[in-house]
Amino acid sequence: MSTMRAVQVVGYHQDLQMTEVPKPEPTGPFDVVVRIGGAGVCRTDLHILEGQWAEKSQVQLPYTIGHENAGWVEAVGSAVTHVAEGDKVIMHPLVTCGLCRACRSGDDVHCETSQFPGIDTHGGYAEYLRTTARSVVRIDDSLEPSDVAALADAGLTAYHAAAKAARRLTPRDRCVVIGAGGLGHIGIQVLKALSPAELIVVDRNPDALKLALTIGADHGVVAEGRQVEEVLDLTGGHGAEVVVDFVGENGSTAEGLAMTRQAGDYHVVGYGENIDVPTIDLISSEKNIIGNLVGSYNDLCDLMALAARGDVTLHTQKYALDDFQSAIDDLDAGRVRGRAILTPEGI
Amino acid sequence: MSTMRAVQVVGYHQDLQMTEVPKPEPTGPFDVVVRIGGAGVCRTDLHILEGQWAEKSQVQLPYTIGHENAGWVEAVGSAVTHVAEGDKVIMHPLVTCGLCRACRSGDDVHCETSQFPGIDTHGGYAEYLRTTARSVVRIDDSLEPSDVAALADAGLTAYHAAAKAARRLTPRDRCVVIGAGGLGHIGIQVLKALSPAELIVVDRNPDALKLALTIGADHGVVAEGRQVEEVLDLTGGHGAEVVVDFVGENGSTAEGLAMTRQAGDYHVVGYGENIDVPTIDLISSEKNIIGNLVGSYNDLCDLMALAARGDVTLHTQKYALDDFQSAIDDLDAGRVRGRAILTPEGI
Amino acid sequence: MSTMRAVQVVGYHQDLQMTEVPKPEPTGPFDVVVRIGGAGVCRTDLHILEGQWAEKSQVQLPYTIGHENAGWVEAVGSAVTHVAEGDKVIMHPLVTCGLCRACRSGDDVHCETSQFPGIDTHGGYAEYLRTTARSVVRIDDSLEPSDVAALADAGLTAYHAAAKAARRLTPRDRCVVIGAGGLGHIGIQVLKALSPAELIVVDRNPDALKLALTIGADHGVVAEGRQVEEVLDLTGGHGAEVVVDFVGENGSTAEGLAMTRQAGDYHVVGYGENIDVPTIDLISSEKNIIGNLVGSYNDLCDLMALAARGDVTLHTQKYALDDFQSAIDDLDAGRVRGRAILTPEGI
Amino acid sequence: MSTMRAVQVVGYHQDLQMTEVPKPEPTGPFDVVVRIGGAGVCRTDLHILEGQWAEKSQVQLPYTIGHENAGWVEAVGSAVTHVAEGDKVIMHPLVTCGLCRACRSGDDVHCETSQFPGIDTHGGYAEYLRTTARSVVRIDDSLEPSDVAALADAGLTAYHAAAKAARRLTPRDRCVVIGAGGLGHIGIQVLKALSPAELIVVDRNPDALKLALTIGADHGVVAEGRQVEEVLDLTGGHGAEVVVDFVGENGSTAEGLAMTRQAGDYHVVGYGENIDVPTIDLISSEKNIIGNLVGSYNDLCDLMALAARGDVTLHTQKYALDDFQSAIDDLDAGRVRGRAILTPEGI
Repeated sequence: MSTMRAVQVVGYHQDLQMTEVPKPEPTGPFDVVVRIGGAGVCRTDLHILEGQWAEKSQVQLPYTIGHENAGWVEAVGSAVTHVAEGDKVIMHPLVTCGLCRACRSGDDVHCETSQFPGIDTHGGYAEYLRTTARSVVRIDDSLEPSDVAALADAGLTAYHAAAKAARRLTPRDRCVVIGAGGLGHIGIQVLKALSPAELIVVDRNPDALKLALTIGADHGVVAEGRQVEEVLDLTGGHGAEVVVDFVGENGSTAEGLAMTRQAGDYHVVGYGENIDVPTIDLISSEKNIIGNLVGSYNDLCDLMALAARGDVTLHTQKYALDDFQSAIDDLDAGRVRGRAILTPEGI
Repeated sequence: MSTMRAVQVVGYHQDLQMTEVPKPEPTGPFDVVVRIGGAGVCRTDLHILEGQWAEKSQVQLPYTIGHENAGWVEAVGSAVTHVAEGDKVIMHPLVTCGLCRACRSGDDVHCETSQFPGIDTHGGYAEYLRTTARSVVRIDDSLEPSDVAALADAGLTAYHAAAKAARRLTPRDRCVVIGAGGLGHIGIQVLKALSPAELIVVDRNPDALKLALTIGADHGVVAEGRQVEEVLDLTGGHGAEVVVDFVGENGSTAEGLAMTRQAGDYHVVGYGENIDVPTIDLISSEKNIIGNLVGSYNDLCDLMALAARGDVTLHTQKYALDDFQSAIDDLDAGRVRGRAILTPEGI
Repeated sequence: MSTMRAVQVVGYHQDLQMTEVPKPEPTGPFDVVVRIGGAGVCRTDLHILEGQWAEKSQVQLPYTIGHENAGWVEAVGSAVTHVAEGDKVIMHPLVTCGLCRACRSGDDVHCETSQFPGIDTHGGYAEYLRTTARSVVRIDDSLEPSDVAALADAGLTAYHAAAKAARRLTPRDRCVVIGAGGLGHIGIQVLKALSPAELIVVDRNPDALKLALTIGADHGVVAEGRQVEEVLDLTGGHGAEVVVDFVGENGSTAEGLAMTRQAGDYHVVGYGENIDVPTIDLISSEKNIIGNLVGSYNDLCDLMALAARGDVTLHTQKYALDDFQSAIDDLDAGRVRGRAILTPEGI
Repeated sequence: MSTMRAVQVVGYHQDLQMTEVPKPEPTGPFDVVVRIGGAGVCRTDLHILEGQWAEKSQVQLPYTIGHENAGWVEAVGSAVTHVAEGDKVIMHPLVTCGLCRACRSGDDVHCETSQFPGIDTHGGYAEYLRTTARSVVRIDDSLEPSDVAALADAGLTAYHAAAKAARRLTPRDRCVVIGAGGLGHIGIQVLKALSPAELIVVDRNPDALKLALTIGADHGVVAEGRQVEEVLDLTGGHGAEVVVDFVGENGSTAEGLAMTRQAGDYHVVGYGENIDVPTIDLISSEKNIIGNLVGSYNDLCDLMALAARGDVTLHTQKYALDDFQSAIDDLDAGRVRGRAILTPEGI
């Protein structure tokens, strides 16, 4: 049996460890084994090591971490016909059943029996990963796995919220994006591609706003205390038809609702604090609070179509798989610009 | 100049007073004067007398109260062609401009410059009321103004929420209605008419549930502590695709959200308490909180179509206009079954 | 190897023939073998024997005919978890891939590589049928396979069109159903369950109209030359917001379009003639012509939910599997009331 | 009484005639008098002179022609508050009632009692035009009436179809535009602004395609016989999810349907020939044929928002009002590039 290198969680509050493990093979007819080209290093990985997910995921240690993965198809099960050896693919973060009502409706994220590689089963900090036919998306020849890997989860969450928000936006509408960081950066590009609305971006960081203006924002508002008033000023005193909040803490939820126009939608994507709102306020304004989880398989296909034509790009900082500890340390210390990606060769 | 009787607010924390005032005439080309056939006596009227609306409405005293009105067209302005003298009509609770973006989109409830007769200008506890062409809906010959007047505001609010909720409901879905009182009673009938979903009604009052089962509910759940568990049991442990909360206090909002399935909609209609929910819960479940205000002019037309064919009925207790104080007292003392209605002759 | 009885096409323009063939077993992990409880005998089966489908289906003779099937799960492949031996099931008419964009969007009818048992592979005029996990729908304990089998294709087509049509229907709208025969009969029941619109049914046969009025139609119009005028009279001269045409021949398409209101939808379900309409007429009226194919897996689940609560029923005439030729002959001679069904025991 | 110059139809098959007529004043409370800044000269105007509209419009001669108008508010009736003297405005082509069901739903184009200035009442080949508050849209300060006048009808028709088409378009979809002339030119810009789909433009004229590629088209296909095959090649053999046909004659309807994917929408905007399609083809493919009329008031507001930010532009060739005959002659002779516009000073 051939083996491969994999970076594993061996204990909580311990460092990750590089291990030699069996190379996965397709065992079921719909299995797909992917040679990893890029694996995103995410803040969630730090939380896993701190044990925050232990109870929720019930994962058995040791296991291979890494939930944002892309690469090349290495081998396929007997029934797989839509991808073939050598195809470039990105992986949807969930492995879903395909048979429950949610899966049958294109809403696979709400699958009743899904698995989450990198969280509750083996993930992509490794040379190879076994997944299923339902979770691989072919990507355009022009895209590199290590460039798009981070779109598999963080980017997909931003896409999903932005695409849902865009559905009701027309040329006269305004859309506020709260937070121009990792997710917000993708969200702005997606809103620009999908919607004709005026985009107002709110962030504490003036540099992030400058960047936002170059990728599609029409107005930048520095969040230094008067952001609600400034948004109201920019919207004729009414607020925006849609607000997408990628922050979800430090008061952003009350501010986001205050920036939302009557009959408007406030989308919550980032999280941390509680939303605490009088029912009378929701009723007299007829505002909606819209929850947002990661995107579906179809969302990921759509996002890859935007990426293929250059409408969505992401800055990445690459590390060789062997340098996984540097990537983790840099992320923890705030030294990563864009997203940290592990690649076989670190290129 | 001819005069008429009108019941007016002459001071807060004082009794209403019957007064002789000028009979209104159409002065503008789109004015419509209606001879009142029924005026609903609503809990909001009690709150007005307590001064709770004084600051918000800025109404000048004295003025004629009453915001749920129906009757017969008495006279029309020169430009009115869609109704004529003698037509039976119900009045939408708002007088709207017709020119702002909301009005132009059929969403007149969010008109930027609306008036609210009975709240901020003269209402319908009177023999006649002046309104505009935009606010009158012709009703079927088979309907009596005094029977449908209470549908003009309370019923319209229930219709609006139920119709919004019904849009996503399919034969396999479940819809929970919290509160089988005045609004809930209408909401159940509307959901039954508009949606093929299974209806589960939750209320503290077993008698209200019995009644609910006769007008369309499939299941009744007595709210005596285990209502969330019971709803989960009735929905395979998942919760309902849609929950419509006509209560909005005493814990119903947290319970309503707990009864809502992943990716489901929780509609808030009743009000009183705060919704206080961790952002992480909304995100991981992708639930939506949907605000609901009173219905639009089109909603009222639709509701009247249902009423005309007997799909929505309402129990009323009628009082002569001169007996307004008895109606107010009975309502305040909980002695009204269904809705109290003032009519010219009390029939 | 055990064997079973199956009724096969052995040549075009020849009689069907009962044959002893191997009993199917699950060979793939997602296979499901169903013991047939009811197989609908459809006019399409007559056309198959006449060779009308030979070129289109490219099926190899001999093969087992029968495309409307229901029964009990006999055996399942290793990966099937959502149904188990003994479950009552109805079969979606198509076997779909689950991986193409259409399948991933819940629109499996447009699967890029589907099979159609009974048409291009072995069907259900037999004791057993092998299908896949994606094509079986569990039905309620209260339903009998032989009672619902005909809903698998004919009923599903009617459901699909009616459910699409119902989406835009409100209490003030009118919906015309052209044709109160097999499909129309189901369509009327579905429209009644899903929509609050007024239903106007048009048919040549006064008896079919009488029946229609007992299952949900509000008006019946005998098609004896003045049907367009009568529908216009019933709709204030405007026509109906939605027309669903289950006939599609003998002039029904031009009549159906003439019965459709400005900005309305004309749904074509039945077929035979050409639609021939000046572009100027479509443009000045802004009418839409909506195509309709058979329903999706989700549609079938929804239809079974309606059937389980008695909202959709169908008259059937049952024959023992051995009496297949009588069923065929009766259908050909117009002697079947409702749908002919083959069952193991003819009950 | 003051007078003004107006260009009138004095008889069919006769030249238009410049006449001195009374300057219009606001007589009703919702009247708006506009000083014309630009009036589009449209092919429909040629057809009016040929008498093609005489029976349909029932207009009394002489009357002032011109149905694409923009300018400055000159005077308003007593009840008009949303525009004021001096405001720049464009006029919706219809004068609508505001009270019928269509008007109350934002669908004013289907108003039951609308007028059409320039067609059935006085239009804009004049110094002033009287219209109503419901028909004027304020435009951005950066826009000139003579630059946008032609968007009032031709542009609005293209906007409406493109916006309807865009609603279902996602990043993986393809949209075919047939015809890159006047309307198609606007349609392409609108589709680019509103939708993330790949745009394929089909036209006989290679120069028009070159221009199309500079304003948003992704592919140009010369219509010289193999256009259906080329579109199929560009869409993986499937056809496009949406086709918008701005031609509607010379075979474009059959070609357009052949370019449409299964379950796709074929939008007809241009007109001339009949659509003649077997019902079996619509059903087996589940394609839809979507009619398109001119856009609503809201559509015009949206289009002006796009114009204000430069997303939609139009080439115009301007003529002084006194030179109306040159404009008519140039249009008739094919000497106008873009749209001919009459202006007070010809600038």
